[in-house]
Amino acid sequence: MKIVALAGGVGGAKLAHGLAQILKPEELTIIVNTGDDFEHYGLYICPDLDTVCYTLAELANPETGWGRVDESWNAIENASKLGGLDWFKLGDRDLGTHLERTRRLKAGDPLSQITRDFCKAWGVEHTILPMSDQSVRTMVDTDEGELAFQEYFVHRRCEPRVKGFRFVGVEEAEPASGAKEAIESADAIVICPSNPWVSVDPILKVFSLTASTSSARRPAPLPVGEGKPVVAISPIIGGETVKGPAAKMYRELGIEPSALAVANHYRGVITHFVMDAVDSQLTESVRGLNMRTLVTNTLMKSHEDRRQLAQAILQFVGSDS
Amino acid sequence: MKIVALAGGVGGAKLAHGLAQILKPEELTIIVNTGDDFEHYGLYICPDLDTVCYTLAELANPETGWGRVDESWNAIENASKLGGLDWFKLGDRDLGTHLERTRRLKAGDPLSQITRDFCKAWGVEHTILPMSDQSVRTMVDTDEGELAFQEYFVHRRCEPRVKGFRFVGVEEAEPASGAKEAIESADAIVICPSNPWVSVDPILKVFSLTASTSSARRPAPLPVGEGKPVVAISPIIGGETVKGPAAKMYRELGIEPSALAVANHYRGVITHFVMDAVDSQLTESVRGLNMRTLVTNTLMKSHEDRRQLAQAILQFVGSDS
Repeated sequence: MKIVALAGGVGGAKLAHGLAQILKPEELTIIVNTGDDFEHYGLYICPDLDTVCYTLAELANPETGWGRVDESWNAIENASKLGGLDWFKLGDRDLGTHLERTRRLKAGDPLSQITRDFCKAWGVEHTILPMSDQSVRTMVDTDEGELAFQEYFVHRRCEPRVKGFRFVGVEEAEPASGAKEAIESADAIVICPSNPWVSVDPILKVFSLTASTSSARRPAPLPVGEGKPVVAISPIIGGETVKGPAAKMYRELGIEPSALAVANHYRGVITHFVMDAVDSQLTESVRGLNMRTLVTNTLMKSHEDRRQLAQAILQFVGSDS
Repeated sequence: MKIVALAGGVGGAKLAHGLAQILKPEELTIIVNTGDDFEHYGLYICPDLDTVCYTLAELANPETGWGRVDESWNAIENASKLGGLDWFKLGDRDLGTHLERTRRLKAGDPLSQITRDFCKAWGVEHTILPMSDQSVRTMVDTDEGELAFQEYFVHRRCEPRVKGFRFVGVEEAEPASGAKEAIESADAIVICPSNPWVSVDPILKVFSLTASTSSARRPAPLPVGEGKPVVAISPIIGGETVKGPAAKMYRELGIEPSALAVANHYRGVITHFVMDAVDSQLTESVRGLNMRTLVTNTLMKSHEDRRQLAQAILQFVGSDS
């Protein structure tokens, strides 16, 4: 069974890790959001891509979900003493990744090849790809003006009220080498429990078939094979997010945050929907959107939780396809 | 007494540190070579400037002379695991300096202002200035072709045979803000025991008064006040260098390396010359170059050696001027 998972940061990385515990390397491709990539201190930083890679490599900090385990902070502490910006936490080991990625990008290598090479060095056997080798920059329109994503997300701690999003460069961005082929030949697509607005929508827009649909408010369908299931897992549990601003964003955009709102967000894109047991009362409403529905435990506290959720999702799409 | 010291890396930094132990902050300006600056991993690195700053801040690694004391190497080790270049040793704390300098240069701040701010943060009270805020790049012509300085010096460990030097951009480079004024108003100039070819010549060329003299083989005079002493300390002791390739360069350029060769190199620029006691037999020859000569211990093994040499130099130029 060939699976493509679409992932953002921590939540997406956890499920991707669960899937990687079950599927063989050739059975799983993880396509990761790069809309939150940015340049900082002259270095090219890919927060979601690194979180997914570190998680699968079991190098991630288990407490934060992002960054490296056993990390030191000597570089950023010295930069900070010199008046440097310390709102984005750059650990020393993590910096090594950004240094080498920046060096190779400047030498002309595509991000997808660099990511493949880094994964090989870290012992990650499943395929992890950026959504595109071209730059896409998520901009957050807020009541304080438009902010670059990391400025909004990390520096401003998601405090400004969200009014909308813009993905600069998405119309021109081509899917990364091998990513479109992976989606086209997949037996199922898994949209991880990542932020629909800022983690998954940029990926969906890169794979949109027409420019007209990509600029529409509603995400466009993926180029999946005829009748192949596309399943999304709700990042919203009981009206709140485990991590990150998705629920706050829904509220500020005038939508009650709920698993139903997520299912509705993906209408026209997904065929299957997975939500947490605490949201079981929404089952009928989601089915009304013409989606098959699975209600299960979606909270991933342990490695075993990740594996169990991945297993449940694979059975769900496998039994119905 | 106002002193300007011209310095390259480790040897220059040691004498500058000695001078700083004696002179008040307003009495000493250290102008540092930036011809060996380079970009590496997207970061802007100033090896000589950092060595001088770290030394005066007492943050330098006492064993190597360059880099930071109590350093960790997590970033470069991870970059190296990913296939990165590790020939230039970037410690984690040191990286913080390069990160913040790169950020500020990209924001448009001049290197001299950045250096002043860094020194303030590190508690360095004497003035340290880059020779110029504009880029000067030392290129080494060798029997294997022309190499960028760090490529020759660190990556190739000075192995290729030297045929000559070129300082790209030196004709257009202006002295850093405050540097020319410091030289013009100094009571004496001290040319530290740094490499004449690649540490001191680039500084001298930046301060050359005419383009015609700056492109000549022989360094041009500094814009010092009438009758003010300019003293150089030989980096060559007993025909060899304490550190670095100066003696090897002299040999490869067909010149017997000696304190006399150094004095001859600076003919027309200096009025005073300091050489080690082991070279006392050269005293008459140096005096023949129309220079006042001091023979003393110039090897700086301890902090006290640095202070004693600085004291001897100040007495030497003070008594004669």
